[in-house]
Amino acid sequence: MDGPSPPGVEIERKFLVAHPPDRLDEGERIEQGYLAIADDGVEVRVRRRGAAMTLTVKSGPGMVRTEEELAIDERQFESLWALTEGRRVSKTRHLVSVGPDLVAELDVYAGAHEGLLVAEIEFASVDASDGFTPPSWLGHEVTGDARFANQALALSGRRPDDR
Amino acid sequence: MDGPSPPGVEIERKFLVAHPPDRLDEGERIEQGYLAIADDGVEVRVRRRGAAMTLTVKSGPGMVRTEEELAIDERQFESLWALTEGRRVSKTRHLVSVGPDLVAELDVYAGAHEGLLVAEIEFASVDASDGFTPPSWLGHEVTGDARFANQALALSGRRPDDR
Repeated sequence: MDGPSPPGVEIERKFLVAHPPDRLDEGERIEQGYLAIADDGVEVRVRRRGAAMTLTVKSGPGMVRTEEELAIDERQFESLWALTEGRRVSKTRHLVSVGPDLVAELDVYAGAHEGLLVAEIEFASVDASDGFTPPSWLGHEVTGDARFANQALALSGRRPDDR
Repeated sequence: MDGPSPPGVEIERKFLVAHPPDRLDEGERIEQGYLAIADDGVEVRVRRRGAAMTLTVKSGPGMVRTEEELAIDERQFESLWALTEGRRVSKTRHLVSVGPDLVAELDVYAGAHEGLLVAEIEFASVDASDGFTPPSWLGHEVTGDARFANQALALSGRRPDDR
């Protein structure tokens, strides 16, 4: 359980947030839409994050982990974005320090998911994850809860009922 | 009905082929696999055609026609190809002259679809299409028959029953 995690494995914890800290940074707008999702979970999405636009293909849950990111230009993004209608999330990502060398990504959702705030923290090791004491502004932990995955949020088009 | 077709609309006819002409050209190998297909028909595929590798996103049937093709390199192709297992077609494409300025693409399928030969001809106008007299090596016409679309062939993993 000690030492860094194996390559390709992320150790993350995810929390709902009812009352975010005051004085957030300006944040970065993220727009993400799914072009298609296969039965085996392979997903293809386009994303605009600030000025960077990408098309990303990710493997499904039962497969060898694969993620390929292709840079696309503004024209390609606009053309592909039009194909994601009904399968989108928009959010503003703020970075919040939660300890030495520890940063939470606080995503404030907009549009159909307005009112949903989710913070995610990536740890360098399982020990660091286990030893983490969440600050009071972090609420109910939803690590591993599939309803809060971006793909599920995009497809459902609304905030999950049970918070 | 006269003149060239509107932009973005292809006038094509498709035929099954039982007995292809002798002395075909060497042909070009095409391997095509679908990463994901959305409920609304948006499809994302990777293709290797000779030395060219691409990822293509196409809109579904009920949508404004969109097609975006991104060049990918060998490493990206191999990585993405692994995600298309069970959703692939392999074929060799031969070009066969079928009249002045008129060429049929004769696709000889391999693997799970071995034995299937399909010829497709694109016409410059509806008149040219209507006036076309198929040479004797072209068999049953399957224009518009969804079972012979590459996407359907890839997903079914076999030749259609009814020929």
